[in-house]
Amino acid sequence: MSAGSVPGAVEIVEVSPRDGLQNDRIALDTATKVGLITRCLDAGTKRIEVCSFVNPERVPQMADAEAVLDALPERDDVTYVGLVLNRRGFERAAKTRLQEINVVIVSTDSFGRKNQGATIEDALNTATEIAALAADAGMRTSAVLTTSFGCPFEGEVPQRVLVEIAERVAGTAIAELALADTIGVASPLDVKERLAAIRAAIGDSLRLRCHFHNTRNTGVANAWAAVECGVTSLDASLGGIGGCPFAPNATGNIPTEDVAYMLRRAGIETGLSLDKLAEAVGWLEGLLDRRVPGLYAKAGPFPTTRPQSPG
Amino acid sequence: MSAGSVPGAVEIVEVSPRDGLQNDRIALDTATKVGLITRCLDAGTKRIEVCSFVNPERVPQMADAEAVLDALPERDDVTYVGLVLNRRGFERAAKTRLQEINVVIVSTDSFGRKNQGATIEDALNTATEIAALAADAGMRTSAVLTTSFGCPFEGEVPQRVLVEIAERVAGTAIAELALADTIGVASPLDVKERLAAIRAAIGDSLRLRCHFHNTRNTGVANAWAAVECGVTSLDASLGGIGGCPFAPNATGNIPTEDVAYMLRRAGIETGLSLDKLAEAVGWLEGLLDRRVPGLYAKAGPFPTTRPQSPG
Repeated sequence: MSAGSVPGAVEIVEVSPRDGLQNDRIALDTATKVGLITRCLDAGTKRIEVCSFVNPERVPQMADAEAVLDALPERDDVTYVGLVLNRRGFERAAKTRLQEINVVIVSTDSFGRKNQGATIEDALNTATEIAALAADAGMRTSAVLTTSFGCPFEGEVPQRVLVEIAERVAGTAIAELALADTIGVASPLDVKERLAAIRAAIGDSLRLRCHFHNTRNTGVANAWAAVECGVTSLDASLGGIGGCPFAPNATGNIPTEDVAYMLRRAGIETGLSLDKLAEAVGWLEGLLDRRVPGLYAKAGPFPTTRPQSPG
Repeated sequence: MSAGSVPGAVEIVEVSPRDGLQNDRIALDTATKVGLITRCLDAGTKRIEVCSFVNPERVPQMADAEAVLDALPERDDVTYVGLVLNRRGFERAAKTRLQEINVVIVSTDSFGRKNQGATIEDALNTATEIAALAADAGMRTSAVLTTSFGCPFEGEVPQRVLVEIAERVAGTAIAELALADTIGVASPLDVKERLAAIRAAIGDSLRLRCHFHNTRNTGVANAWAAVECGVTSLDASLGGIGGCPFAPNATGNIPTEDVAYMLRRAGIETGLSLDKLAEAVGWLEGLLDRRVPGLYAKAGPFPTTRPQSPG
């Protein structure tokens, strides 16, 4: 039994404007998206996925990617990120002010065909090609590795597949690899074992990030497991909104405010204001006209000391 | 970074009939409570808190404790547990078939006065006295230590208070101590640090259990942290229903089915059928006429391998 060691700070990458909204039945207009992003920035977010350059016929909620980027405040201390699935998407992204693109690599052929019409091999080739072009254009590339803990179509995803993909990515212009639990099936033991296997294979040649969905209520536990393994960058979405339009039953990302609360109580700095995140959740619930999955905003902060009040 | 070692099996103590229902706006009749308990047994539950012997004017949902016990099936392989707050409650429990009682120790005077009209010292004395009487009557006694990770009235609960209480409990007829996060404020680091401090002080002289609420979405992560520390007994409630009537904003326990899923995926046996738990959740939602917080029953099992179906 050991309390283990945890990092002093963890970066939470806000994904609500992209992963959060892409699956929502309410398509928000550009100004409202900018309102969401601005509220996240006010709460302290420094890295935020604001849009995706995908086929507007498949994901109409993201059709205004360029307009969103045009309307965002200039912030030298903030990295705006856009998701890119293919060469056509990259060409759109390259014409914008984006500093970072997120490309998508798949860990099974079945999910790859559904999500982006590409096998593992296709997706790896496209991602590395785009990363090289992005580097030439002065943009950083991160890659998301989908269904890293289980696939809706193939079930178990062998650990060796992840290791092989990580080894191939490590030699490219891709700076960071995010293991994504696209359908929310991981256990914390999976997280620890897979991160350990990848680290053993590639050392520190690639920064690792994690992207968890809370579909079966294990997402926050998985985030904690990743942090215990030294991962210092986690995707999360305000209120826990989100899902993947091409993964059946995929539900929201882990809620930013709940993860930030957990880390704060463990003495790990995120730079986020819990009060401002809770305010933003209230605004978001009004906008979407429903309760979101995140719990911190309902429950409130750790209680402050009050005079004893025996009843 | 280490994948750590985890136990091969963990017991989930089902608390939905007591902690789950005591705060619900719908008071269930005795036959319905027995229906809930029977469904839990069908799913594999072997230890279940079925009632509490408290003042029926304060907690009317639990007024039929004796009637529930009378109506339960005879099961040699199942331990029925009843909650007892004071001597009067014990006298009621002693006249029943119960094999185990759960007494309540508090970690702050403020919460103790609100919950059961007792200071830490009062509660410790009552608990140890009842445990001795219970032993004479052939009943096992476990103790729950409330607000072990934070108090709604006093805020931070010093770790040394828990250690001192555990040291005193270790010398009594109480066989097991459950650290309870009554208001759902713990982080996994708190769990690890507090369990380590208590183990360091008392060794293996007392079995430890944990009782988490998912109020701020950290409950399942806390359960995982406890398991990593060698705790092999966790309280949970079907669907994650529950709360404490005397703790403001306290919400449900960690959901049995979600914890069982997490442990199953980590290769840890619980003896529970996920399918039957999910069925029982469906029944419970019909009964309460609302969605419960648990997520596994909505999301379904880890996907089985299906033929590749490119779309």
